[in-house]
Amino acid sequence: METALTDTATPSIETVRALCERHSNWGRWGPDDERGTLNLVKPEHITAAASQIRSGRAISMALPFDDAGPQTGAFGRFNPIHLMLRDGADALAGTTVRDFYGGVDRYFRGTDDMIIMPLQSGTQWDSLGHVVYEDKIYNGYGAEWVSSKGALKNSVKNGADGMVGRGVLLDVPRALGVDWLEPGHAITGEELQAAADRGGVTVGEGDFVFVRTGAMTAARHRGGWGDYAGGDAPGLGLGSVDWVAERDIAAIAADTWGLEVRPNETPDVFQPLHIVFIVHMGLWLGEIFDLDPLADDCASDGTYEFFFCGPPLPFTRAVGSPLNPMAVK
Amino acid sequence: METALTDTATPSIETVRALCERHSNWGRWGPDDERGTLNLVKPEHITAAASQIRSGRAISMALPFDDAGPQTGAFGRFNPIHLMLRDGADALAGTTVRDFYGGVDRYFRGTDDMIIMPLQSGTQWDSLGHVVYEDKIYNGYGAEWVSSKGALKNSVKNGADGMVGRGVLLDVPRALGVDWLEPGHAITGEELQAAADRGGVTVGEGDFVFVRTGAMTAARHRGGWGDYAGGDAPGLGLGSVDWVAERDIAAIAADTWGLEVRPNETPDVFQPLHIVFIVHMGLWLGEIFDLDPLADDCASDGTYEFFFCGPPLPFTRAVGSPLNPMAVK
Amino acid sequence: METALTDTATPSIETVRALCERHSNWGRWGPDDERGTLNLVKPEHITAAASQIRSGRAISMALPFDDAGPQTGAFGRFNPIHLMLRDGADALAGTTVRDFYGGVDRYFRGTDDMIIMPLQSGTQWDSLGHVVYEDKIYNGYGAEWVSSKGALKNSVKNGADGMVGRGVLLDVPRALGVDWLEPGHAITGEELQAAADRGGVTVGEGDFVFVRTGAMTAARHRGGWGDYAGGDAPGLGLGSVDWVAERDIAAIAADTWGLEVRPNETPDVFQPLHIVFIVHMGLWLGEIFDLDPLADDCASDGTYEFFFCGPPLPFTRAVGSPLNPMAVK
Amino acid sequence: METALTDTATPSIETVRALCERHSNWGRWGPDDERGTLNLVKPEHITAAASQIRSGRAISMALPFDDAGPQTGAFGRFNPIHLMLRDGADALAGTTVRDFYGGVDRYFRGTDDMIIMPLQSGTQWDSLGHVVYEDKIYNGYGAEWVSSKGALKNSVKNGADGMVGRGVLLDVPRALGVDWLEPGHAITGEELQAAADRGGVTVGEGDFVFVRTGAMTAARHRGGWGDYAGGDAPGLGLGSVDWVAERDIAAIAADTWGLEVRPNETPDVFQPLHIVFIVHMGLWLGEIFDLDPLADDCASDGTYEFFFCGPPLPFTRAVGSPLNPMAVK
Repeated sequence: METALTDTATPSIETVRALCERHSNWGRWGPDDERGTLNLVKPEHITAAASQIRSGRAISMALPFDDAGPQTGAFGRFNPIHLMLRDGADALAGTTVRDFYGGVDRYFRGTDDMIIMPLQSGTQWDSLGHVVYEDKIYNGYGAEWVSSKGALKNSVKNGADGMVGRGVLLDVPRALGVDWLEPGHAITGEELQAAADRGGVTVGEGDFVFVRTGAMTAARHRGGWGDYAGGDAPGLGLGSVDWVAERDIAAIAADTWGLEVRPNETPDVFQPLHIVFIVHMGLWLGEIFDLDPLADDCASDGTYEFFFCGPPLPFTRAVGSPLNPMAVK
Repeated sequence: METALTDTATPSIETVRALCERHSNWGRWGPDDERGTLNLVKPEHITAAASQIRSGRAISMALPFDDAGPQTGAFGRFNPIHLMLRDGADALAGTTVRDFYGGVDRYFRGTDDMIIMPLQSGTQWDSLGHVVYEDKIYNGYGAEWVSSKGALKNSVKNGADGMVGRGVLLDVPRALGVDWLEPGHAITGEELQAAADRGGVTVGEGDFVFVRTGAMTAARHRGGWGDYAGGDAPGLGLGSVDWVAERDIAAIAADTWGLEVRPNETPDVFQPLHIVFIVHMGLWLGEIFDLDPLADDCASDGTYEFFFCGPPLPFTRAVGSPLNPMAVK
Repeated sequence: METALTDTATPSIETVRALCERHSNWGRWGPDDERGTLNLVKPEHITAAASQIRSGRAISMALPFDDAGPQTGAFGRFNPIHLMLRDGADALAGTTVRDFYGGVDRYFRGTDDMIIMPLQSGTQWDSLGHVVYEDKIYNGYGAEWVSSKGALKNSVKNGADGMVGRGVLLDVPRALGVDWLEPGHAITGEELQAAADRGGVTVGEGDFVFVRTGAMTAARHRGGWGDYAGGDAPGLGLGSVDWVAERDIAAIAADTWGLEVRPNETPDVFQPLHIVFIVHMGLWLGEIFDLDPLADDCASDGTYEFFFCGPPLPFTRAVGSPLNPMAVK
Repeated sequence: METALTDTATPSIETVRALCERHSNWGRWGPDDERGTLNLVKPEHITAAASQIRSGRAISMALPFDDAGPQTGAFGRFNPIHLMLRDGADALAGTTVRDFYGGVDRYFRGTDDMIIMPLQSGTQWDSLGHVVYEDKIYNGYGAEWVSSKGALKNSVKNGADGMVGRGVLLDVPRALGVDWLEPGHAITGEELQAAADRGGVTVGEGDFVFVRTGAMTAARHRGGWGDYAGGDAPGLGLGSVDWVAERDIAAIAADTWGLEVRPNETPDVFQPLHIVFIVHMGLWLGEIFDLDPLADDCASDGTYEFFFCGPPLPFTRAVGSPLNPMAVK
């Protein structure tokens, strides 16, 4: 496996361009495709994944959605704001009946609530319309397909019935013998392979790959998010792109805010892997997945593959979606 | 099977009280339980359900979340409001870089969005804190545990890793030879059994049961929601309670706004089954599930059972949650 | 007074172009101006207006902001959604102290609330960034100055300390001897002058002019908003533009959703007066002002001028603002 | 003037009780009153105030409403979230016409926006329903009148046409010869009188009184809000209550988050003056008023009284309201 990095002292937009060219999936599934790498999931992958369900354990990879989340307001992303429309205190005070049921008491008192949240504020899938590069989104659609009205192309809804299959956990810190990777650690293809080897799994077509960096473990250890959202972080580096791209996986997710190493290795390009993965490969990226419970489970039973079910919610024209991803073993 | 209805001309709060007493699960799983009937799902149910995955098809039961949803504003429930924080038009106009990236162009332009939505506005689970009856919520907790701060007891998060197991579709209109049930049709235990028989399935412990009334089909047929949200509707009647309760199922969901028949059979009690099911049985209820694609699939292959994965999102202190429920066959 | 309409059978974009050219204020107050016609309000106008305060009556022109407002969701405009963060029922249930004050009772229990609202959903000022025409906003700024980040030029905040001066009510239906104008009635300069004459007022430099069409009266009469928001309506016509422009007024507001007559007189141009007034004249437009109480007062005392105070709220980068406009007599 | 403090080493709930008893206005304006001290504003106050308009200057006391505001999320109060519904970038990209106007180009392109904000997040009036004490709100209404539905009694809308009259600025730091008061400084009646004397004004019936502490000046000086919202602050102390109460003013506002000194002088009572002023006196309190520009103006011309116009927006059932308060001189 060659990497894009061999000849350059400092990676740059040229590195990104080379990776885009090498791995672009534009047109691979037709000119009208909006599903990208989810096309790689075949029925046989799903049935094979089902055979991984042996002990009957379901493990969530979702961080709770609440005001204790990692967001700081940067990039317009705030933590979810949860509000009650009516509640049990109203029931006790008699105000549910008086104010919501027209004064007619028919024994029932409901409670109701709502949420205000950026769709990328917590555990989330990025849609293929989440990134614009050189005025284009995935599959060559013009950026104008994502307007103030939303994503008329490449919306997150395209993944609503496709996020089911084989899941594989790559626990990089355990493979490297550390509790967590440090910010700035650029994970390579070799490290991903080492984690796969250690887990006894082969990553292949249609897989849902979960990369643990330990960043959430570290946040728990220090008792606070700090600059988890948007700051320096461990994550996939340019040296992982070929490894990821050559395996024809369905999606990849991590326990960090942005999947990629930060600072980015390319001083002139922000989030270069988002450009290669989302815009050119049509690869679905997941972020802020809480992989610690799953990692503990895998370490405990020695099995790093499982049945995965984690579709986005079908938000029409959305560029991201919160979800509750489940590993079933 | 006896019903609660044999001796009364008109059902009333007394009917509801009798059903609550007969089927109450308060204390069944300990005084601190907040999971209710999800306790009935055992690992062996999950492994057995996995064997239903034979053809590798994943079918979503979620209605799209958008402004074309069924809500009318009644009960404070409006359809989701989707908003872009920045978009592709900004990328084209140069305003992403100028206004969000401090004027520094590093090739990447992200799009971002958010949602404002009642948690019960679309395809949803009701939490066990959603209904107050006689100043109590499920398991006897006082209603004051659901305040303006949210549900400190019985929040929807308690279901976040428990909604996986065997799913069964009960297609009542197909069992009765009609396209859809009419509003006011109170589904009985006998009709549920007939649908199970027709599907060749036995409903049992830990099952996730999906009851199709055809109400969404009817809305599609007439080309509009009409009074789908809160108006007259087909749904479970008092005569179904014993059947449901005696089977020790994990959850039950329907393709209607409120699961129950409307008008309610009890002139003096609003949503009587919510009181019996949620408050006293601790049974998880799902509403506004789009069961039409699944029903077509089941009619096509003759198989009415499947692997189900449909956890709520772990909204902290919430009394409901949208979700994307998946049937995998 | 000539009008733009004399030579054309059907007004069109050419009519609008001629009006823009005739009345454009671009550059009039310098290349950096973002205040438009508010520059016309001089200190002496304010002191003169103060002399109109004779009886000590304050009359609001604001429609209540609530879910009974006129919006239908069209153009993304919904009625304000008001939500309590904590309330008196919490105080009674003990949940304010338990859930918001850390369990420490110090006698005080606050209530708190919030609002979600389009800034143009009720009684409102349009900012000078509210309309784009031929890729420009007022004073020739490029449309890119109003991005997803908001209005970096011509925001509503520019009016925050300038909306004080002499107010004049032009009660057109009373001048024409009717209860209200019918939808489609295009108010002319002659009719505005007739209303001024009937009120015994001369409209001049720096005035805040309020044009009553009776549309809100009609809605009250029929007991519902109907298509008030966005439907056919009485309002200013092309024949009023010269009259308005020549008087160098500070702002003009009406009791309709969009100020202009609907259907528009120009089949090929939507809201042509918005283009002339906002984009080229830099004239501040007010909409959904409830002028009925003021009109009754003016009819009662025969005085159609008053002290006006009605600044927008200084929402940073906003293109509109709700307000509570006050007439003081 | 006596104070409630003479006999007690440490003020307590008993101090508050005595003040409530001494100054309660319950029933003063009838059992159905919801306007409290706004009843004290008489037409002659308004006409007299108009005579203060001599130079034609309008000065806003509003802090901009935006994400740079002082809130931290404490008490559920966050800074306003401003969102564009469609913007100029859409106009340039052609997406306004394509996505919002059904593809029909009629020259006009509108921009639109919305706000999500706690009603007490910035410059604001507290309504008389904002505080519950001993299960009651102002005028003895039960706390149940403020439910999840909002304030059915004592809502902020009751002030919508009553906030016009004589304004008086009491610039306490200038009276004391300092730039700003330090946190913990409990302003006394004597200090308020000193500020009035220094300004050459007598505070009397129906006045709108603005108390500058300099807290906002201090925040500007240090270049950040710090704990302005909810932390230690200068403000009115118990020793100011008699002075304020005996003057029969209409409303009082300050440049701090909570008007009162913090830490409160009563270890066992949070915000004791809110209890006395709002609950028992029915006095309207304003907070987060930016009094610096006004104070500079008053220092410059030596005139500390002015015409005031600052009604809340008529948010139905709200317990607070943002506003743009104007001093006109």
